[in-house]
Amino acid sequence: MENFSFYSPTEFVFGRETENECGKYVRKFGGTKVLIHYGSGSAVKSGLLDRVKASLDAESIPYVELGGVQPNPRDTKIYEGIELCRREGVDFILSVGGGSCIDSSKGIALGVPYDGDFWDFYGTGKRVEKALPIGTVLTIAAAGSEGSGASVVTKEDGMLKRDVGSDLLRPRFSILNPELTCTLPPYQTACGATDIMAHVFERYFTNTSEVEITDRLCEAVLITMVKEVPRVIADPMNYEARANIMWAGTVAHNDIVGVGRSQDWNSHKIEHELSGLYDCAHGAGLAVVMPAWMEFVMNHNIMRFAQAAVRIWGCEMNFEKPEETAMRGIRCFRRFLHDIGMPINFAELGAKSEDIPVLVEKLGLGDRKTGGFVSLSSDDVAEIFRIAANAEL
Amino acid sequence: MENFSFYSPTEFVFGRETENECGKYVRKFGGTKVLIHYGSGSAVKSGLLDRVKASLDAESIPYVELGGVQPNPRDTKIYEGIELCRREGVDFILSVGGGSCIDSSKGIALGVPYDGDFWDFYGTGKRVEKALPIGTVLTIAAAGSEGSGASVVTKEDGMLKRDVGSDLLRPRFSILNPELTCTLPPYQTACGATDIMAHVFERYFTNTSEVEITDRLCEAVLITMVKEVPRVIADPMNYEARANIMWAGTVAHNDIVGVGRSQDWNSHKIEHELSGLYDCAHGAGLAVVMPAWMEFVMNHNIMRFAQAAVRIWGCEMNFEKPEETAMRGIRCFRRFLHDIGMPINFAELGAKSEDIPVLVEKLGLGDRKTGGFVSLSSDDVAEIFRIAANAEL
Repeated sequence: MENFSFYSPTEFVFGRETENECGKYVRKFGGTKVLIHYGSGSAVKSGLLDRVKASLDAESIPYVELGGVQPNPRDTKIYEGIELCRREGVDFILSVGGGSCIDSSKGIALGVPYDGDFWDFYGTGKRVEKALPIGTVLTIAAAGSEGSGASVVTKEDGMLKRDVGSDLLRPRFSILNPELTCTLPPYQTACGATDIMAHVFERYFTNTSEVEITDRLCEAVLITMVKEVPRVIADPMNYEARANIMWAGTVAHNDIVGVGRSQDWNSHKIEHELSGLYDCAHGAGLAVVMPAWMEFVMNHNIMRFAQAAVRIWGCEMNFEKPEETAMRGIRCFRRFLHDIGMPINFAELGAKSEDIPVLVEKLGLGDRKTGGFVSLSSDDVAEIFRIAANAEL
Repeated sequence: MENFSFYSPTEFVFGRETENECGKYVRKFGGTKVLIHYGSGSAVKSGLLDRVKASLDAESIPYVELGGVQPNPRDTKIYEGIELCRREGVDFILSVGGGSCIDSSKGIALGVPYDGDFWDFYGTGKRVEKALPIGTVLTIAAAGSEGSGASVVTKEDGMLKRDVGSDLLRPRFSILNPELTCTLPPYQTACGATDIMAHVFERYFTNTSEVEITDRLCEAVLITMVKEVPRVIADPMNYEARANIMWAGTVAHNDIVGVGRSQDWNSHKIEHELSGLYDCAHGAGLAVVMPAWMEFVMNHNIMRFAQAAVRIWGCEMNFEKPEETAMRGIRCFRRFLHDIGMPINFAELGAKSEDIPVLVEKLGLGDRKTGGFVSLSSDDVAEIFRIAANAEL
């Protein structure tokens, strides 16, 4: 096990009707003037936004609003938010939505107290020194942003998708009411589930040995997803299955299952180019990229892939041909993704093989390699895209 | 799943040589005058205390010292600590030791700013309103106190063991260096491991249905213990196995594996009377009590015990007689405890069957029942003690 530090100070408030407590939590964490940041009209139409406002009113906390965050959140909305917060003297950001909304909120949070361009922090490793506090009311189990210090934003000019990470961007509190996810369409539900599973797999495929505890915790989350996701696809209003998925999504990405081990994250990096170019859902892109990545790197550690097949997918171990078991696990994953309604190749995603050179070019590796479980060159990435393009069940 | 809130704001700093960073973390969390609180001479003899002091010196943070915390920490030492802290103007408590030392530190932390007797909070449910901040340098994987808001203290007059819990008692930081546990004798190591496993089992046996995610997380920790503990008993210097156990011990008790479900805790309550009366190690008492409790309550939910047997102990499911599988799991647990050197009955623990009425009397249930997975009367507790007294492999 490698040395690590683990810090997840977010207060998670989980369960039915918990959105009515958000005013109380804004007060607890010192907010006196709030920006309510949200995405599409569904938070408005469902009445959620009204309940959030009522809970702020009950605490006599004033607020301003900024809606319209898009999936793959844009820099332009963040500039708008920063200006609004400065003008109105906002000292707390309340994010009502999914990962895109929370990531946009984090961009605003670090941008308000910063003299320069907030984009300076994205993709550069520049250290965040100050940020407004954030709270979230989560409406989709997916990105894990409600419990993480990460933010991914797309620069509209060139559709560049870049990220930043800092403990200062971890929400002070996150309100997780599974009921709010019951109205999500199956496709979005499945995209979120895929993202959650990918967050665990990115940690699971490691070059660190002797990490039994985090291996087992990773498997715990994945086994839960394998059981619960088909239940909500078949029965979207199933509260219990929604609840298990929602908490799994948080646990998957606050790093409790990933500490002390090297991680990969190349599938995420590669996928960002797909959703950057085609503006597809991140989870859908991952469904196409991740099994292809697995096939490409499998030989680097056959036994780890066999372990995944046996422990997560319940495959019988083939002791004579472990590589057969390893491959079977990857096929189980792709079959699972297909069964929950995810695309499994370029055609189903709406991507084009002839764009592969453009996708590789945009990733910008040049002659460098991108490290992880296996270091990948531009040629390797192109090959992963080719496997993804032509994948079948 | 039940509604819950989860809040674990402790910063965990894990790995080799991390104790040298504790001065840095005291500064980060605002300490300007420190009480170093420790237990036996081993922290002194091993040089650990010197390294801790050197790291405080490096930050120019002054400190006073109070050693001599006993296992099953006593109220008397806490009174001493409270007086010392007030006299010296201490504003941060640094606990260097195991669970007893940390629990003693928590007693001091809540006592210093409180006008009355610190004991008012123990066993009464009285709410903690204020406490000094705490940091820990953990030397034994066991109690989980490094990541919890709980403290268990024994009142010397009458040997009453009582507890208190508050988020204010959660350490600001906890330094976990598995190397510090490598010199622990096998018996203490096994006691700690038993405590860790008990913390998970107390959560695992629940009346809440549809809690797949926490079931699986519980099993992840237990499976890890089943693999790693025999390795350190055979090879105490095995860093990797020590590391897995140490992180498992923290995860087992910061409630990440227990949220959203009813829990039991009767084995802990019952055990407290054993260690209260005989001053035996808490883990050793649990090794005797917990399998007996399992046998007594098993029929309440045979399938849950069968699930434990299959998933944790790797038993084959007997689909015709699930109760046979359930019982086999309990026997596996008792065999495991025996194999790592734990007592499994009263004789091995040094307890006496004729004391059972005294033990039951001290628990003080009277005509009430103690709730949990199964509500227990005084007669039930007596029967559990009788099973424990006579247990065999």
